[in-house]
Amino acid sequence: MAAPDFPQHVIARKRDGKELSRDDIESFVKGSTDGSWADYQLSAFLMAVFLKGMSSRETALLTAAMIGSGEVADLAAIRLPKADKHSTGGVGDKVSLHLAPMVAACGVAVPMISGRGLGHTGGTLDKLEAIPGLRVGLSISEFRAQLSEIGVALIGATAELAPADRRLYALRDVTGTVESIPLICASILSKKFAEGIDVLVLDVKFGRGAFMKDLARARELAVALTSTAKAMGKPARALMTAMNEPLGRTVGNALEVAESVACLKGSGPRDVMEVTYALGELMLVLAGTAKDAADARVQLERSVSSGAALAKFRRLVAAQGGDGRFIDEPATLPQAALRQPVPAARAGFVVDVDACGVALAALRLGAGRAKAEDQIDPAVGIAGLVKSGERIEAGAPLCVVHASGARPLAEALEILGSAIVIGDAAPPAVPLIGEVVG
Amino acid sequence: MAAPDFPQHVIARKRDGKELSRDDIESFVKGSTDGSWADYQLSAFLMAVFLKGMSSRETALLTAAMIGSGEVADLAAIRLPKADKHSTGGVGDKVSLHLAPMVAACGVAVPMISGRGLGHTGGTLDKLEAIPGLRVGLSISEFRAQLSEIGVALIGATAELAPADRRLYALRDVTGTVESIPLICASILSKKFAEGIDVLVLDVKFGRGAFMKDLARARELAVALTSTAKAMGKPARALMTAMNEPLGRTVGNALEVAESVACLKGSGPRDVMEVTYALGELMLVLAGTAKDAADARVQLERSVSSGAALAKFRRLVAAQGGDGRFIDEPATLPQAALRQPVPAARAGFVVDVDACGVALAALRLGAGRAKAEDQIDPAVGIAGLVKSGERIEAGAPLCVVHASGARPLAEALEILGSAIVIGDAAPPAVPLIGEVVG
Repeated sequence: MAAPDFPQHVIARKRDGKELSRDDIESFVKGSTDGSWADYQLSAFLMAVFLKGMSSRETALLTAAMIGSGEVADLAAIRLPKADKHSTGGVGDKVSLHLAPMVAACGVAVPMISGRGLGHTGGTLDKLEAIPGLRVGLSISEFRAQLSEIGVALIGATAELAPADRRLYALRDVTGTVESIPLICASILSKKFAEGIDVLVLDVKFGRGAFMKDLARARELAVALTSTAKAMGKPARALMTAMNEPLGRTVGNALEVAESVACLKGSGPRDVMEVTYALGELMLVLAGTAKDAADARVQLERSVSSGAALAKFRRLVAAQGGDGRFIDEPATLPQAALRQPVPAARAGFVVDVDACGVALAALRLGAGRAKAEDQIDPAVGIAGLVKSGERIEAGAPLCVVHASGARPLAEALEILGSAIVIGDAAPPAVPLIGEVVG
Repeated sequence: MAAPDFPQHVIARKRDGKELSRDDIESFVKGSTDGSWADYQLSAFLMAVFLKGMSSRETALLTAAMIGSGEVADLAAIRLPKADKHSTGGVGDKVSLHLAPMVAACGVAVPMISGRGLGHTGGTLDKLEAIPGLRVGLSISEFRAQLSEIGVALIGATAELAPADRRLYALRDVTGTVESIPLICASILSKKFAEGIDVLVLDVKFGRGAFMKDLARARELAVALTSTAKAMGKPARALMTAMNEPLGRTVGNALEVAESVACLKGSGPRDVMEVTYALGELMLVLAGTAKDAADARVQLERSVSSGAALAKFRRLVAAQGGDGRFIDEPATLPQAALRQPVPAARAGFVVDVDACGVALAALRLGAGRAKAEDQIDPAVGIAGLVKSGERIEAGAPLCVVHASGARPLAEALEILGSAIVIGDAAPPAVPLIGEVVG
């Protein structure tokens, strides 16, 4: 039996572009969990992976090893098919909050574990935490019990599931190794498959407000995600969606929760519902509970019109200890001290709402994190955002800024002033939903 | 004024193959000295440099920043020209020990700071420490005083000179980033130029016993070293020398010290003296004290035949607190408990002495380090090595193993049995001295 290699030998093999063995990859993942690799060795390896890439086989082995670094939630007792959705992240993306109960209302269990946002606006977990009293830190057994009971749970990462990812993700963030497709793939898929799901739908965003700005690169990520999932025996499909303008009319955690509730009540913004239905269709078809997309669409629309999805959401909030009054009275959500409309300087058509500018304004207001240790203010953000193509009168509000103080308010107003552009004619409509990959 | 960049931004620029600015490089070097970059950021950067390289300009900036991380020995009070020699390292390379006093005896000051060996056999510092009582840890003022007094000092690295290199070198060793030409260049040159020298001669070895096995790659290193030195205003030349067989007839620290003394007494092995004279010629010509190589050769030969070089060496040993008796009585050097000849299995010609095999045997005996924290045994090693092309009778010794115990002795004997090959005819002679670069 060969002696186990030193970390530097595994690093050197990847550095030299060699295909790594299962032992090599398991040594790295074990090293990141038990400390047998030092941080400086992990980061040198991550940089070598960033620059030399990984084959599909290596990416699948890495994902499997990261899943194996912890437990996998055992959901065998839940007889429903189990599906989840993951988004690569965009500005105003609150889809998970209402999609999960909609899909659950259609008879597919959704064991969703979400992360916090970094860099941009809050993640799903941050939005959930805007709900008074809601607990996101369920144990695996509580998670399982809630799934058995109501078919949906929205929680945060636990120390038991894919623990290797936690240290690696933190290191990647400070060593310039975030934007590596095999590393992103393994990070996303290891967390998702540790949930115990059967099938996975991915919302891979492209455009200036997305993590992957370039369509070709985003498609490359979509292909890597779906093919790695399949190599691991898990059906997966990815939907490419545009992220040039914010999704919906709100950006900010409590504001987005209220918008998600509106979606469940049938009054969600058109663009949000378009993405929600497209993703939900893929989930139901992949889970085998709809015979095709049209059938799935009918089921999903009915879950809203019948109130079944809203009822699921109420039960979810109650099960996780949340105060459900916000569902009927949005004003019980955290409220910002200051609200100020941004008036249109002229009449015309909205020709651009720059997702990056809106995200930056939200960040300055305190709705997101510049650094991992930053605290989020759930109340602040931007509401009532106009959408491209809409007609606007001079002085009418382009949006309303919700701020905690005068200084962040002033900063946000300045940024928003140039992020929203008014012109003489409506711009050509740009499709929001792109191709399906996988 | 722009805010200083985060380390990850500098890392990302190198990762993306961009040319780094002076500020970028100074941030990295400062970060490695004052701790403002974490180890994991330094190592991610080192891997990015390994894979993306550095331009000549970047390498010179890195070297300058590493020199600037500490003091530069101020040798202005020493009126003699100041030259040094650095070898990229080979098996049995004890040239510094006798070359430095030879060159000093020719009127050129040699302020030599040496390192320990890693991986292979001991470095110059390890050999010096085999001399009873000899101090290698001089302060900069003691170093300067000794140079004024006798024109030569052989010491170890100090905390004041090029401190950045210490942390970086240790990290490179455990992160698979040692064999990077710009990093090697900056590491060697920063340490050497911090000595306060005027000119530098480099012995760049190639072949199976060298750090750079491949001639083209070794030449690339020689070009980088000499052109970076020149970019910094320091004349430098590199001599390419072959390192397929051990240099001389001894490998092991005390044994090599004794062989160096023999060189100073005019009875050094032919190959060792060939390399010694070639390097000494370049040093004297570059320092301006010899008009050409032939003139330098006459001076260097005279330093040996007159006893002047040996006298310099005696003074050096005494000045650094060493017990000089070993110069006349080699048996006062550390002695190994066991000595065993390796007999030739048959008569014939020596056709190969594999430097790697001999180095591995020496390592097993305890003459070198497998890990940085390993202790070296100064007494052990291999002496009386035959050289390729020599005729040998059956049963005559191919070498004598000096060991501290039965187990390392047995391991060394087995390795040496296959490292030294006897054939029917003398092999063609292979030139030891290659081209001069720079």
